[in-house]
Amino acid sequence: MINITFPDGSSRKFAAGTTPLQIAESISPRLAEETFAATVNGESWDVQKPIDTDAEIKLHKWDDPQAKHAFWHSSSHLLAAALEQLYPGIKFGIGPAIDNGFYYDVDSPTPITESDLPKIEQKMLELAREKQRFVRREVSKAEAMDTYTKKGDEYKCELIGDLTDGTITFYTNGSYTDLCRGPHIPSTAPIKAMKLTAVAGAYWRGDEKRKMLTRIYGITFPKKSMLDEYLALVEEAKKRDHRKLGKELELFTFSPRVGQGLPLWLPKGAALRERLENFLKGVQKQYGYEQVITPHIGMKDLYVTSGHYAKYGKDSFQPIHTPDENEEFLLKPMNCPHHCEIYRSKPRSYKDLPVRLAEFGTVYRYEMSGELHGLTRVRGFTQDDAHLFCRPDQLKDEFKKVIDIVLYIFKTLDFKEFTAQVSLRDPNNKEKYIGTDENWHKAETAIIEAAAEKGLQTTVELGEAAFYGPKLDFMVKDALGRKWQLGTIQVDYNLPERFDLTYKGSDDKEHRPIMIHRAPFGSMERFVAVLLEHTGGKFPLWLTPEQAVVLPISEKYNDYAKKVAKLLNNCEIRTRVDDRNEKIGRKIRDNELARTPILLIVGETEQANDTVTVRMQGEGKDRGAMTLPDFTRMVADKVAEEIRPIADNI
Amino acid sequence: MINITFPDGSSRKFAAGTTPLQIAESISPRLAEETFAATVNGESWDVQKPIDTDAEIKLHKWDDPQAKHAFWHSSSHLLAAALEQLYPGIKFGIGPAIDNGFYYDVDSPTPITESDLPKIEQKMLELAREKQRFVRREVSKAEAMDTYTKKGDEYKCELIGDLTDGTITFYTNGSYTDLCRGPHIPSTAPIKAMKLTAVAGAYWRGDEKRKMLTRIYGITFPKKSMLDEYLALVEEAKKRDHRKLGKELELFTFSPRVGQGLPLWLPKGAALRERLENFLKGVQKQYGYEQVITPHIGMKDLYVTSGHYAKYGKDSFQPIHTPDENEEFLLKPMNCPHHCEIYRSKPRSYKDLPVRLAEFGTVYRYEMSGELHGLTRVRGFTQDDAHLFCRPDQLKDEFKKVIDIVLYIFKTLDFKEFTAQVSLRDPNNKEKYIGTDENWHKAETAIIEAAAEKGLQTTVELGEAAFYGPKLDFMVKDALGRKWQLGTIQVDYNLPERFDLTYKGSDDKEHRPIMIHRAPFGSMERFVAVLLEHTGGKFPLWLTPEQAVVLPISEKYNDYAKKVAKLLNNCEIRTRVDDRNEKIGRKIRDNELARTPILLIVGETEQANDTVTVRMQGEGKDRGAMTLPDFTRMVADKVAEEIRPIADNI
Repeated sequence: MINITFPDGSSRKFAAGTTPLQIAESISPRLAEETFAATVNGESWDVQKPIDTDAEIKLHKWDDPQAKHAFWHSSSHLLAAALEQLYPGIKFGIGPAIDNGFYYDVDSPTPITESDLPKIEQKMLELAREKQRFVRREVSKAEAMDTYTKKGDEYKCELIGDLTDGTITFYTNGSYTDLCRGPHIPSTAPIKAMKLTAVAGAYWRGDEKRKMLTRIYGITFPKKSMLDEYLALVEEAKKRDHRKLGKELELFTFSPRVGQGLPLWLPKGAALRERLENFLKGVQKQYGYEQVITPHIGMKDLYVTSGHYAKYGKDSFQPIHTPDENEEFLLKPMNCPHHCEIYRSKPRSYKDLPVRLAEFGTVYRYEMSGELHGLTRVRGFTQDDAHLFCRPDQLKDEFKKVIDIVLYIFKTLDFKEFTAQVSLRDPNNKEKYIGTDENWHKAETAIIEAAAEKGLQTTVELGEAAFYGPKLDFMVKDALGRKWQLGTIQVDYNLPERFDLTYKGSDDKEHRPIMIHRAPFGSMERFVAVLLEHTGGKFPLWLTPEQAVVLPISEKYNDYAKKVAKLLNNCEIRTRVDDRNEKIGRKIRDNELARTPILLIVGETEQANDTVTVRMQGEGKDRGAMTLPDFTRMVADKVAEEIRPIADNI
Repeated sequence: MINITFPDGSSRKFAAGTTPLQIAESISPRLAEETFAATVNGESWDVQKPIDTDAEIKLHKWDDPQAKHAFWHSSSHLLAAALEQLYPGIKFGIGPAIDNGFYYDVDSPTPITESDLPKIEQKMLELAREKQRFVRREVSKAEAMDTYTKKGDEYKCELIGDLTDGTITFYTNGSYTDLCRGPHIPSTAPIKAMKLTAVAGAYWRGDEKRKMLTRIYGITFPKKSMLDEYLALVEEAKKRDHRKLGKELELFTFSPRVGQGLPLWLPKGAALRERLENFLKGVQKQYGYEQVITPHIGMKDLYVTSGHYAKYGKDSFQPIHTPDENEEFLLKPMNCPHHCEIYRSKPRSYKDLPVRLAEFGTVYRYEMSGELHGLTRVRGFTQDDAHLFCRPDQLKDEFKKVIDIVLYIFKTLDFKEFTAQVSLRDPNNKEKYIGTDENWHKAETAIIEAAAEKGLQTTVELGEAAFYGPKLDFMVKDALGRKWQLGTIQVDYNLPERFDLTYKGSDDKEHRPIMIHRAPFGSMERFVAVLLEHTGGKFPLWLTPEQAVVLPISEKYNDYAKKVAKLLNNCEIRTRVDDRNEKIGRKIRDNELARTPILLIVGETEQANDTVTVRMQGEGKDRGAMTLPDFTRMVADKVAEEIRPIADNI
């Protein structure tokens, strides 16, 4: 008998050789049906693989990533099974699970194109309905090689050649057998819905000198409704792609002549960004931050001092020489060295701390052109950076204040779901980190307590701290459920040391301040991208480039429309007139499409009564006529609702 | 007889050989006394040199630069005469007039130091009182060489060696004779006040391989009061040196590690700059400008296209390479190419113009370290840049609007005196310029008319236009009477051509827009420097980093002081508390020195009555107690007085 311990700490005896699936079965048939993978003693485990010793077990249902991985890996076998029946003589490369689904690389005797996918899906569905069991079998290397040599599949033979005898397994479902390490789900039965999403070329083993295989991408689900939901989400994500929206809303552009990865902010985008910056500046001012401005280059030695050159120098933009070759500069990859120099520009006393230096600082870091992506991966970006220089006894309080700012931003910008992660030292490898044991202990305690006191739900990861200090990371979930990392708060013992930063303590001796790096938005570029995808371009009213557009129902009312727009602009309501010579229906449609939050329709009655007919984005019908003072008040109320005072949020 | 024509167009007959001085004499003895130089037929002319032909004549009194030049040049001879008497055997290099006074380079048998200057001044005064006439005499090269060979003055001999026989003149005053081209004033009599200001080393002929001579600097005036005024101005200018004030007021700093010529804006300076930027942004918004944001680098090819690389590439920061060497970037020396790319980012119609793209864009240009000077000559600076793209028929109106903005800025920032210069083509060298004759004519007419319609007093300079278009420059006079160039408005036909910018006209054909470059401040760095020197750090209330400081008369009132400061800050009055443990007298002194415009003194009575005792900078006494609402209103009124609406100014 073996002793099986469950995640809740309870344990039961089973006969040796019992499989996870049998264990699930013993609890309930429903559980067995929903169990797609298992972890045994911390090891990924096929649900059908016998357990021979005492073990801690975890059974994975769909929501666990391990379950999805097994489900999609099994689905790639199902795809291969279907392909083998439809394209006799087809040869197989590799077929792994990926983040969203799976793929299989194949070498087919007849070419496979997008138009073939429905037929293949049909065959997969057919085979899935046969409820084929995935049967695991250990084979010798010789047998494995023999099998694929007979099939004439040189790709699998090559893979087997790299494996060690005694570790090789085959998995069979129906008539299809694959060289595979597993784990798999028990059978094809739960694969209820499938979609092959794309066909692409892929070099065998990623080597462009070798043969180009056909890669078929797909995704599967245990329920049809889940597939529908997924496809809708993909469709919505495409619509919300910030590169597409950025173009449609005229927020930013790129020019090959200026250079790839270097965004040009168009008027509406620049205004949006400025509004975001001013919003954060206002918040930071209330927390005692001081704005500074530093150059975008610095002497190479500055980054040698900071350590950035040793770490990134070779892989980044190369040094800038002067005509006389006497000096060497670098594009600044980070603002911190500059802020350290500002800290050093005068003597500091313990009474002056914390010193909180903030800058919307544009930094430049080289990325390979293949890595660039819209505003989320660029070569130049503006960090909403700040460096807090404080005494050890101030660390926790400063940390709490930064958490306040981050939470206030999330709330104001409608990111309702987020998680936080505390990254600490690896307690078994303390020598990897700089700073005294005492300081690390203080800092780690400060972060954990600060997070707890602010009511944050955090996970704690040991060994994830940077070598120079522990940190707190926030991950937000956007409207489509995708996760984005925003708002790292990083403690740093390194730069104060390297720049020899000091303050005079109450004991009249020189002490080393602690530095906190923080950027709630991360960068203006990335944040605007996230915000675009989160909101689908429907920004909150306070933030949106154009709040209202006045639509005269005919040319006769253009003058009145302009008068209205001028009055509203004077009241700080960003208003435009659409005086194009178009039908009013067309104007309404176009401006709803442009995501303008408020449409103001004006004609005979409105002009006569000094009113506007208000139509809010997405409501599909008018709210009726309002006087301008009433309308202005309504907008002010709505904005005030969106930007609550900080005090309401902390 | 010859015919002499005066600047007012009138003319009179004189005997041939009459000198300008005699002509002045014939008008009035007073004029003769005040005439220090003359221009005859456009040529600089000694007042004692006979005129033999018909001529246009201009007599120069002190206020003309030509008069000062002759006066100071003559003063350098007076200095030499004094030195020859005091230091027998002394040899002379050159002794020119300069912008403010003159110098003489000498090789003295006994060293001359600062402490010798009063003695030399005394001797100069003595000789001046002898009313020595400056006597001009033409000499042959042989005679000249012979004279100085006998005196053993190898420097003058070397100078004579370089001259052409027949062009050499000597000037004698008293017993001193100098090799000199003139012109000079009639005698030493008008030199009533003198100050030798410095002694320095200077290599003979500026060649560091040759002998180091002693350079003695001086300045002289026709009245003692003028010297006193000048010396007071020099003293005041030293106090107002923006480098000194910038440090005292903690506005900016430099760090050798970041790099020379790269300012770091400290919190107060950054806030000041931001306020200036927001002020201009607000004005520009009213004029339909749109802010954009572009990167600080661009592909080298961008600047090849714009022509900047060909013109400045070799002398500026060198190209930035990527690690894979596939791309070459440059630090941007100008924002215009980026703005051209934004213009190009979508099709433009004649109805869309003018497009006005503005950016506070930081640019980087290499300067040799010897050329760097505080904030006025730096390697990185932020232009208050904008580029207006317009149709030819819009040029004049756009120009007028830019003039409005410039004048509004001058008025708001209290630059009361300024001049403007229109720079046009050289009509005899039209082939030097790009753009059609018709366009040049239109543009030049537009500028001249725009300036006239705006009531500007302008001078017109032919041949001073850039090769790509005419321009209008403003020169302001600061509080010390020094002139600064601010606010160039430049028409450009070149970049629209090079970037192939077009708009679709009402004729449905593609047309070329005209571009206007303009930066009223020039750069934020230079403008803040000028403003510092103009105001001596006493900025207008709306602009100053700290508007008020609360001074508790003892620690007991610190809490009340903080309450006051918080309330005022909430009312957007930038207020600090000086709660140092110092006597109130000391606090008042320190804060007046720090140029804080308003001191608020609080103690027992103020706390009891919820008031503050107000003391305005420079008034030397209190204004008495005020309630906070009254005080807030007073500040608001004062600020409103300083920033009048644009409409009041144009």
